[in-house]
Amino acid sequence: MGENIGACARAMLNFDLTDLRLVNPRDGWPNQRAIDMAVGAFDKMPEPRLFETLDQAIANCHFTLATTARTRDMVKPVFTPKAAARELTARAHQSQKTALIFGAERTGLHNKDAALCSGLITIPTNPDFSSLNLGQAVLLMAYELHQQSGTETLDVTLPTGDSAPVEQARLQEFFERLETELENGHFFRSPELKPGMVNNIRSMFTRSDLTDQEVRTLHGVISALIGNKAGK
Amino acid sequence: MGENIGACARAMLNFDLTDLRLVNPRDGWPNQRAIDMAVGAFDKMPEPRLFETLDQAIANCHFTLATTARTRDMVKPVFTPKAAARELTARAHQSQKTALIFGAERTGLHNKDAALCSGLITIPTNPDFSSLNLGQAVLLMAYELHQQSGTETLDVTLPTGDSAPVEQARLQEFFERLETELENGHFFRSPELKPGMVNNIRSMFTRSDLTDQEVRTLHGVISALIGNKAGK
Repeated sequence: MGENIGACARAMLNFDLTDLRLVNPRDGWPNQRAIDMAVGAFDKMPEPRLFETLDQAIANCHFTLATTARTRDMVKPVFTPKAAARELTARAHQSQKTALIFGAERTGLHNKDAALCSGLITIPTNPDFSSLNLGQAVLLMAYELHQQSGTETLDVTLPTGDSAPVEQARLQEFFERLETELENGHFFRSPELKPGMVNNIRSMFTRSDLTDQEVRTLHGVISALIGNKAGK
Repeated sequence: MGENIGACARAMLNFDLTDLRLVNPRDGWPNQRAIDMAVGAFDKMPEPRLFETLDQAIANCHFTLATTARTRDMVKPVFTPKAAARELTARAHQSQKTALIFGAERTGLHNKDAALCSGLITIPTNPDFSSLNLGQAVLLMAYELHQQSGTETLDVTLPTGDSAPVEQARLQEFFERLETELENGHFFRSPELKPGMVNNIRSMFTRSDLTDQEVRTLHGVISALIGNKAGK
């Protein structure tokens, strides 16, 4: 909804966030109701960028967290808002590009999109009345990020030597190759089971903060395993 | 505005606050637009109480903090949201009745009302774009209060559903199988390089906290990838 985009922009700019990326917005873009709702925020931030799919939107990112209300059948770390803000800030200080991902208000995030993220964020609310709208979720996360400006230490570090964290685009190429080869190997028992199986496999890899070098290694692993096939 | 009262109730109940006191609301009370805006929150909290003046509303309180955007010409402590939440919570534990006070959206809090409060709260925002509405200010403070209640939750959790974390023995079997197959596929370029490559591959998997089910899936992945080999 245009209104939600405007509310997001307003919430973001209050806490100094300005890189807004829209994935296939229902009401199109630009949108007058978004502009009305943003009370001038769009005049003080770069033009939001528009993408067809989430993959494209996060292609140049290294670490992404998605807010979600529901528990997922995916093995993926779940952060509190504060822990998420700490993690995102520490990674930004290490020159990683990070992203916060929010689903559409009514439908939330699709599982296939959640599977692309490094982790999830759940905002703890009253179990008897959980009714945060999209703008409010953005506001709370923007606030927590703003609270972190000034802190630089990671609770847990992952030294990766000379190898940089992989870009999402490289990781997605790897997933596509792996899944094609698994399809060829009749790994997916049925078309109905495939999406869930794909999500589970992607989750194993997205949560381990792979480096560029490691993804190249994984390509080598696939090549070696399929090596005896004709034509390879 | 009725809408603002509804947004406040909704924000409060999300974080388990239910004692709403209204001082001389412009649109009167009860108010249909408030009810519409609260998406059911009023059904799950006691009826808001109505007062003519702020003095009356906070008459039974011991400690009160008012949010304000502007600096006041009053000598009065100014709290960050988090420090305010800590203070209010600590005093509540000492059986003090505490209150958070919010002014009308357009006019803010009158100086005579601010003078009645024990202290002020300023929410730090972007100096070039400070545009929190009333409901958003209530949301942030309710969130910070909720953060103070009980700290038993882990910052980061990894929900794994029914699948238990894998035992090291199972993981090692998987490694051995993978490495045997990689050897067969001429993955290791030389005997000298092999130990380092093995370590790197193992590290990718050991750091992602794999579950039992996931390791079974990975066995399936290997089987699918080598599927065309004779004898498998």
